[in-house]
Amino acid sequence: MDLSLELIKEIARPSPTKIVLLVIDGLGGLPNPETGKTELETAKTPNLDKLAAKGICGLTDPVGPGITPGSAPGHLALFGYNPVSFNIGRGVLEAVGIDFNLQPGDVAARGNFCTTDEMGIVTDRRAGRISTQQCTELCQVLDGLVIERIKIFVRPVREHRFIVVFRRDELSPEVSDSDPQQVGVAPKSITALSPEAGKMADIANQFVAQAKVTLTEHYPANMVLLRGFSRQPHLPAMGEIYKLKPAAITSYPMYRGLAKLVGMEVLETGTTIEDELATLRRNYANYDFFFLHIKGTDAAGEDGDFNRKVSVIEQIDNTLTELISMEPDVMVVTGDHSTPALLKGHSWHPVPILLYSRWCRPDRVSEFSESACILGGLGRFPANQIMPLAMANALKLNKFGA
Amino acid sequence: MDLSLELIKEIARPSPTKIVLLVIDGLGGLPNPETGKTELETAKTPNLDKLAAKGICGLTDPVGPGITPGSAPGHLALFGYNPVSFNIGRGVLEAVGIDFNLQPGDVAARGNFCTTDEMGIVTDRRAGRISTQQCTELCQVLDGLVIERIKIFVRPVREHRFIVVFRRDELSPEVSDSDPQQVGVAPKSITALSPEAGKMADIANQFVAQAKVTLTEHYPANMVLLRGFSRQPHLPAMGEIYKLKPAAITSYPMYRGLAKLVGMEVLETGTTIEDELATLRRNYANYDFFFLHIKGTDAAGEDGDFNRKVSVIEQIDNTLTELISMEPDVMVVTGDHSTPALLKGHSWHPVPILLYSRWCRPDRVSEFSESACILGGLGRFPANQIMPLAMANALKLNKFGA
Repeated sequence: MDLSLELIKEIARPSPTKIVLLVIDGLGGLPNPETGKTELETAKTPNLDKLAAKGICGLTDPVGPGITPGSAPGHLALFGYNPVSFNIGRGVLEAVGIDFNLQPGDVAARGNFCTTDEMGIVTDRRAGRISTQQCTELCQVLDGLVIERIKIFVRPVREHRFIVVFRRDELSPEVSDSDPQQVGVAPKSITALSPEAGKMADIANQFVAQAKVTLTEHYPANMVLLRGFSRQPHLPAMGEIYKLKPAAITSYPMYRGLAKLVGMEVLETGTTIEDELATLRRNYANYDFFFLHIKGTDAAGEDGDFNRKVSVIEQIDNTLTELISMEPDVMVVTGDHSTPALLKGHSWHPVPILLYSRWCRPDRVSEFSESACILGGLGRFPANQIMPLAMANALKLNKFGA
Repeated sequence: MDLSLELIKEIARPSPTKIVLLVIDGLGGLPNPETGKTELETAKTPNLDKLAAKGICGLTDPVGPGITPGSAPGHLALFGYNPVSFNIGRGVLEAVGIDFNLQPGDVAARGNFCTTDEMGIVTDRRAGRISTQQCTELCQVLDGLVIERIKIFVRPVREHRFIVVFRRDELSPEVSDSDPQQVGVAPKSITALSPEAGKMADIANQFVAQAKVTLTEHYPANMVLLRGFSRQPHLPAMGEIYKLKPAAITSYPMYRGLAKLVGMEVLETGTTIEDELATLRRNYANYDFFFLHIKGTDAAGEDGDFNRKVSVIEQIDNTLTELISMEPDVMVVTGDHSTPALLKGHSWHPVPILLYSRWCRPDRVSEFSESACILGGLGRFPANQIMPLAMANALKLNKFGA
């Protein structure tokens, strides 16, 4: 039974209890062939294990069995939204992440500055990862174009990454990418994927052509690649659905953007786990739901650095006492997807979850790990059901039906 | 994959095998803080444990993870109906429960006789729980009103509870409650929740106003509170879907009403477990599906009486040999939801289930308890899939597809 957000909204009730959702990005892993243990199983985590013993564990599928989630679907599921019905385009995600003030009709695309040779063949999709400073200067050069009365905004993100926003109501975002996702071929022409998108494809191709001319002298950043054309989706706000006052503690633009899209207040914070916990303590009285995001695990996994991922998990475990000392009514520790160091990327493997509350009906699991969570009382379930579960444990849901 | 009733109906086949669904109301619990054991884990249940060892166990979600079910959704799920699509209003439920012969267009509401002070403020939502005798007399006084050609029936349920039925086809049940669900405030005015419901709201408010005048001299029952305005939903009959001849054995009005709504024959029975088993034996030859309902566990849980709930479970275990001696082909033992004594009410926790049949593929669980069921072969699954499972084990389902 898929529980709709409407149903949850109907039975949600405000209460003074507090929920902390600790998201360890890319938490799930794969066993090291030498030891047979995953990153989480290798890490010494006495505090997480203690919490697992007192609480209840399980495994979640962010999108579905076998599906490797991007960061957006992974997080949307954690916030209770069906990540398939609420798919957010890359362009919108990056735009929101840098605090670009998107307007309802805007179409946004994610851009890369890249390098092409004299034949127009892509030789480096990231232009040698130019500095954010250089990227900012190049964006200023491209910004402000108007093509057929469409106003075009170009804004830097980080290193070679930028966004382009096309402003006019009638544009359809249903066009293909120009980014070929590989080197050794030319950038692709952007084509309409629906009858209404002809104009958008045309404008985007004109923009790419003008950018190519403008960038000629800026080797290695002498071309652009665009992808993820999209418009801002309508996402019902978490505050409305759950009757919560939610806050996000994360320093990375994309997660900040996502949190904003679902109506969270995004708090100012530093980049370390300690910074984030200090932010939590400072704001603890003012909200009743906290999304606390830790990026280091995913970054280490993406780099294929098993030991670094282990050590980030151990760092988190160290700081857990500080979090526990605030005595949230409900604590959920999980990830948005798995990122096994062995795969150097996101994966489809289900994600360990641990929930603790006074009312959680503990199971026999006494260790927070992939293999122990298989036997947990939460079983294996879709990640978008975590929120109703956390709400129930915080006694924030009324009974359904007579 | 949600298996639709249409699919089940297509493959169901009649057969002489018999299914007994033993519903221990509010079965699931939470551990006693002193012992770490739930009510079911505390109870000595040698017969249930023996059956668990021979059978297969698991945990079910009546509505979904985190959702606390009312009695109606909990039971509808057990009978195989998706409790979200088939939501039944309180008014209809109570009307059917007292055997009131609802007609298709009727709108029914649940009423409370209550006490208000001279300012009209509710001081007791239950009028000191007046006797059923008194309630019956007051209902006779209010019964038979006609307001703007709408005929109004008022019938007693039990103690302070009654029903009002408004008879005319065009009335819409989409109106708000007058019951404020708390004391210290005045009853609320009933308002239309959809454009079509204006007339219903108007008639209901007129009824309340007249009832107030009529009841002036009947302190403490000097006012009424109405809630749960609803119309009879169309529920396909169990006999049609499953090709079964189903019977219900339960003494409580609401469960009798529910059983009737899904097309079961409701048998006359007494209030004890022994009475119910005697009814089962007496009628055993005449039906092939029995819904046997035991209320004591839920009542004890609602009262917060851990030990009484334990003792009701032990009583059930004692009488289990009598049930087993009838040799049903399939026995399912489960609950409609959890009612932990610690929470003094229904809860969202998944419900233990045990299924025994000659064809059940036993697991390693040898004890019927929440923590053992986590490791059971049935896993954790939506309660509305119990019926197909029971049907399969009774060899009452054909193969699906060529």
